[in-house]
Amino acid sequence: MALIDSHRVLADLRQLARFGAYKTGVHRPTFSDDDITARHWFLTRLEEAGLKPKIDGIGNVYGLSRGEGPKILSGSHLESQNHAGWLDGALGMIFALEAARAIGEGVDVVAFADEEGHFGSFIGSRSFTGLLEEEEIDRLKNRYDGTPLRDALARVGLADVERRRVVPGQYRAFFEAHIEQGDTLETGGRKIGIVNAIVAIWQYRIVVEGEQNHAGTTSMARRRDAGLALVRLLGEIDRRFPDFAGPRTVWTTGKIALEPGAPSIVPGRAEAFFQFRDADQTVLDRLDGELRRLVEDADRGHCRVRLEVMGQSRPAKMNERLGAYIEEAAERHAPGGWLVMPSGAGHDAQYLARVMPGAMMFVPSIGGISHHWTENTSDEDIVLGAQVFCDAIEAALRASA
Amino acid sequence: MALIDSHRVLADLRQLARFGAYKTGVHRPTFSDDDITARHWFLTRLEEAGLKPKIDGIGNVYGLSRGEGPKILSGSHLESQNHAGWLDGALGMIFALEAARAIGEGVDVVAFADEEGHFGSFIGSRSFTGLLEEEEIDRLKNRYDGTPLRDALARVGLADVERRRVVPGQYRAFFEAHIEQGDTLETGGRKIGIVNAIVAIWQYRIVVEGEQNHAGTTSMARRRDAGLALVRLLGEIDRRFPDFAGPRTVWTTGKIALEPGAPSIVPGRAEAFFQFRDADQTVLDRLDGELRRLVEDADRGHCRVRLEVMGQSRPAKMNERLGAYIEEAAERHAPGGWLVMPSGAGHDAQYLARVMPGAMMFVPSIGGISHHWTENTSDEDIVLGAQVFCDAIEAALRASA
Repeated sequence: MALIDSHRVLADLRQLARFGAYKTGVHRPTFSDDDITARHWFLTRLEEAGLKPKIDGIGNVYGLSRGEGPKILSGSHLESQNHAGWLDGALGMIFALEAARAIGEGVDVVAFADEEGHFGSFIGSRSFTGLLEEEEIDRLKNRYDGTPLRDALARVGLADVERRRVVPGQYRAFFEAHIEQGDTLETGGRKIGIVNAIVAIWQYRIVVEGEQNHAGTTSMARRRDAGLALVRLLGEIDRRFPDFAGPRTVWTTGKIALEPGAPSIVPGRAEAFFQFRDADQTVLDRLDGELRRLVEDADRGHCRVRLEVMGQSRPAKMNERLGAYIEEAAERHAPGGWLVMPSGAGHDAQYLARVMPGAMMFVPSIGGISHHWTENTSDEDIVLGAQVFCDAIEAALRASA
Repeated sequence: MALIDSHRVLADLRQLARFGAYKTGVHRPTFSDDDITARHWFLTRLEEAGLKPKIDGIGNVYGLSRGEGPKILSGSHLESQNHAGWLDGALGMIFALEAARAIGEGVDVVAFADEEGHFGSFIGSRSFTGLLEEEEIDRLKNRYDGTPLRDALARVGLADVERRRVVPGQYRAFFEAHIEQGDTLETGGRKIGIVNAIVAIWQYRIVVEGEQNHAGTTSMARRRDAGLALVRLLGEIDRRFPDFAGPRTVWTTGKIALEPGAPSIVPGRAEAFFQFRDADQTVLDRLDGELRRLVEDADRGHCRVRLEVMGQSRPAKMNERLGAYIEEAAERHAPGGWLVMPSGAGHDAQYLARVMPGAMMFVPSIGGISHHWTENTSDEDIVLGAQVFCDAIEAALRASA
């Protein structure tokens, strides 16, 4: 099997972390100067590796292997969350690059633009898989500073560049490596996670309408306190959800806003962002049903309570045969040190898996931390992961079609 | 007894509502152009009534009666909450003006600046009663646009004007009329509220510190979700407080903030504004004790929970003899149509009552609504209230000292 160059892997990762360095992490938002410098640096690395470098009209970076045989596509993303870690995305890019370098031919590399969602939702992988219309590009704006995506693309010279789109049958498989971003591997003493599915995210807005009133002169009996009704509903969700959830389900209230939000005013309106995630459609449906029942119960009280669906993605199954290649490689390099698990976070692989067999592999995150500048993985785990990943891609490439 | 001119009372109230008119209410923030126009219009009315008009260095407007006999002080405030009602403050000003006009001599009128707290907490009445230092004026800023109070005072020509301060023994009493802002009078079919005490407001900030994490990859068991810990604590307060509260106690969570407040991030920090109000010191102490117990319980969980005291005012007792004057007058004009009750809202009278006998009188609020442009009181109730108020002031003025 092909051998990776562990020094080269670590050196490339450390070099990439210099673009937008922030404390021990990086701040490299999509299409920022640092992000563009990183993309150009990566294009140079691809060329050095003998791949044909390209950047397309949505900002996706490609390294296309020469030759006519079967092809595997591998990659992740280059930009980062704001003031976040050095490995989220970057690790998958350098693993893919190293696999291409080690294997020699048949591995195409791709960095999907804006996986971190500064402008939209997976615009790079959706563009490549034919799920991003021009109209959506017209509409999207940077969520932090409001810059239209069109302006950002023009600023970095991509306004008139064509977007590349995958051709059916072009690739045997898509492989993505990533840090786990949780602590399942670490607490279980494992080195490699073999992703069997990427969870679906069902995101809701809970809206409560009551009556805004003076907090001193409105008796408790007379109030229609939207904030209190929301607190009671969230308390019910907290009590009821464990009975309906699967073993790996997670649910989160990420935001609560009371209006007008003043100390001496009974809130007339309250809103929360609530989401749950699971890889099992049955569990998702069950939780949705229970949530709707709790909202209906709450709506029978003094306030009007309604549920707005903001998004209900579907679980993305990874390909079992590809998973078996990762498993064999992991067993070879770290016997017993692997685990089959779902991904609780979304990844470009969920869109790629719609048009070709997909595979994802995790390496451990120290303390389970990600989306924070302290995010890290030990050098040993990085090197082991790079070799397992390379082996699995090679196995998929060499297998009889 | 002196007779009020009901047409003049209603006409003056309607004229005052033209300054900063907003829908059927007013938007007349402290020291805004509309507020200053209203203050100057009121100074003219005071002069027409034979009172000596003055405005002092904090923006308080005074109408000083001539003559040497005993004096009663009466008034309220002229500015409004943002986009709020036409009677909150204004009613007490026109009632005081009308009492001075009807009685003829011995009634001084005052409009305390910024009772509505655009810049600070009761700065007008605290300045007049000697509780506002220059250093606090240096520090205060408009809570909506950040304008320093000093700049606002300079803009309206009050930078070098002296602040007036009450002289001990100068007044026999302070009388303030106000809309109830609740629905106790309306639901009880009463026309006049005789305030026996202004409640204390005990205001807290609840701060929860947990661990910010990825909402997809952090298992429920591993989370230290600050938002969830706060929701659980607020739920406990909701369940426990009724057992500790008095019959008129009110408690309110006016604001909740989760940080960073994104759909897919487990909140690392959460904060709430929580307050309760009561006129009984025993009840206040009991609720404070229970709140501290619940916070300590919460602090034993996965997150750190602490309580910060933002303010603990004391209940302000109104003078019983003055209350009896209001009661006699109310019984004369609306037999059985009055009620003794605490004020759940703060008023300038709570500061005046520290330095002289204080009295407050309420008229009904339609639907209990205030701090909203739909705030209203029927013309009949306004006229009745003005006469009862005038009678009570006259009785206090004529009583042997």
